[in-house]
Amino acid sequence: DTKLKIFSLNSNYPLAQEIAELMGVELGKSSVKHFSDGEVQISIEESIRGCDVFIVQSTSAPVNEHLMELLIMIDAVKRASARTINVVIPYYGYARQDRKAKAREPITAKLVANLLETAGADRVIVLDLHAPQIQGFFDILIDHLQAVPILSTYFKSKNLNPEDLVVVSPDHGGVTRARKMAERLKAPIAIIDKRRPKPNVAEVMNIVGNIEGKVCILIDDIIDTAGTITIGANALIEAGAKEVYACCSHPVLSGPAIERIENSAIKELVVTNTIQLTEDKVSPKIKQLSVANLMAEAISRVYENKSVSTLFD
Amino acid sequence: DTKLKIFSLNSNYPLAQEIAELMGVELGKSSVKHFSDGEVQISIEESIRGCDVFIVQSTSAPVNEHLMELLIMIDAVKRASARTINVVIPYYGYARQDRKAKAREPITAKLVANLLETAGADRVIVLDLHAPQIQGFFDILIDHLQAVPILSTYFKSKNLNPEDLVVVSPDHGGVTRARKMAERLKAPIAIIDKRRPKPNVAEVMNIVGNIEGKVCILIDDIIDTAGTITIGANALIEAGAKEVYACCSHPVLSGPAIERIENSAIKELVVTNTIQLTEDKVSPKIKQLSVANLMAEAISRVYENKSVSTLFD
Ligand SMILES: Nc1ncnc2c1ncn2[C@@H]1O[C@H](COP(=O)(O)O)[C@@H](O)[C@H]1O
Ligand SMILES: Nc1ncnc2c1ncn2[C@@H]1O[C@H](COP(=O)(O)O)[C@@H](O)[C@H]1O
Repeated sequence: DTKLKIFSLNSNYPLAQEIAELMGVELGKSSVKHFSDGEVQISIEESIRGCDVFIVQSTSAPVNEHLMELLIMIDAVKRASARTINVVIPYYGYARQDRKAKAREPITAKLVANLLETAGADRVIVLDLHAPQIQGFFDILIDHLQAVPILSTYFKSKNLNPEDLVVVSPDHGGVTRARKMAERLKAPIAIIDKRRPKPNVAEVMNIVGNIEGKVCILIDDIIDTAGTITIGANALIEAGAKEVYACCSHPVLSGPAIERIENSAIKELVVTNTIQLTEDKVSPKIKQLSVANLMAEAISRVYENKSVSTLFD
Repeated sequence: DTKLKIFSLNSNYPLAQEIAELMGVELGKSSVKHFSDGEVQISIEESIRGCDVFIVQSTSAPVNEHLMELLIMIDAVKRASARTINVVIPYYGYARQDRKAKAREPITAKLVANLLETAGADRVIVLDLHAPQIQGFFDILIDHLQAVPILSTYFKSKNLNPEDLVVVSPDHGGVTRARKMAERLKAPIAIIDKRRPKPNVAEVMNIVGNIEGKVCILIDDIIDTAGTITIGANALIEAGAKEVYACCSHPVLSGPAIERIENSAIKELVVTNTIQLTEDKVSPKIKQLSVANLMAEAISRVYENKSVSTLFD
């Protein structure tokens, strides 16, 4: 009799399961399989007529597979007469292709926004978009959640001395994020002034701010190949930092990431579960915090037509 | 100085190359690679401003990968100020999901049409859609080519006696196609009256028409797991056919297909190159004919604003 239905696709079933449990509902019954030739075969196995449907899916790797699953599921939900289709995308893939960096490049982050709308999404809930401007790529409603409170609560629980702490942004683009965390921890910030010669390759230049003898917390939104963050951590130690923690919202952790992290000066890497960590990405250095509570609260508020932005007050 | 540009993506480079050669042009310079995390990275490496661009891509397996490559390429071409964007899709994947066969299923063939339009395609050229009705899923111009002339020309070249020949449709849905081929070969038709208990599983029931002592040519649009076609061929032999050839436009050939074909009564399977046959799909029983000439002619006519449908007169 409830009109709220939450469905999970294949990218992050444990997170969807946790969200549903926190909300005291069962996940909707559906199956997402493949035909013999690899085409996605979706079927929804319960009535959703007139319901407010929430579909949980991160567009993490394999990104094209997960994105197509999501688009096809939206189509199926639409044709099954749902009242509203709300798409919960804890990790929004292709977000780094958000502008033409060179001539004749696509803007895939915008394309994906258009595809979601075309498929029939009414509303999108995301977390820490690579650039907040991506919100403007959507003509439908979008709620933009932040993991900074979750990450800072964890660091607070370590009872580190605020006078010893510095929150460090690994690049200029991340300063706003670092400042938000610094405010919560009542700590100053520092910035690593680096240049990146080409994608997935990072280079450290120079540290702006005082980090000598300090406990540094490096913060980024995405850690992908972990070049930027590990070179940054090592540079901080070389420049006299006492120890270096790192944290991010989205642990993409592709290619050499795990090896780099394990061989780096990073004492602990704190991530969230917007992306499920496959077995080859588990490391004793990595601590994963759950965003399920935040997501569940956002879904409840959207469903009850209450303000989502006040979640951060 | 020519305003015609043909680009190939990754699904079927040899076909695109052959088309370009027949038209006396070079393929446009572009690169389709992947970032470390698997996201598609496309760049177009020559100016296409004001050009009529043709992008050749089959949405064959891995279908989601190939489809996203195509959508992202369309976005890049659009943003690079092309005059028109023409998408050449020799094999249109997801075509079998063209209606709600059960409650709460998606209609992915329509979704894909919408996605192509949203990305920015102006016109689509396809070959032997699983159902011709899919043409109506597009609001943009669509040209629908047919492989029947290519397949029947090949069988004609075998100098088989028309009086000995029967063209056989493996199911009721394929009768129109079989009739078209039969007209070209001046042969009668027969129909296999089968029921299929579930997807990718086939069952033969009963043969409608006279096939005793005849050379049968089974024709289908797609051969996927090859269940339908091999059971059909064996049933024809059991019912007294002299020998059985099979042919189709699109050699999907997934799962047990090759094994089934090799172990079947099929003497030769004639297919086209709308789908590139990977190494594990090569078999001495399979003959592959090229659609490059047909595609090149269609592209020329679209480019020169001439009638494409008269290609079949
Ligand atoms: N998946 C990806 N992996 C690595 N680099 C990417 C990816 N997607 C986009 N980029 C590149 O990353 C740059 C944008 O990253 P940023 O400067 O951090 O916003 C652009 O130059 C993109 O070409
Ligand atoms: N990729 C696929 N492989 C096998 N069966 C499929 C595929 N896509 C759709 N189908 C099913 O095939 C049926 C349609 O095939 P047809 O009756 O030949 O038009 C529908 O019941 C679909 O559920």
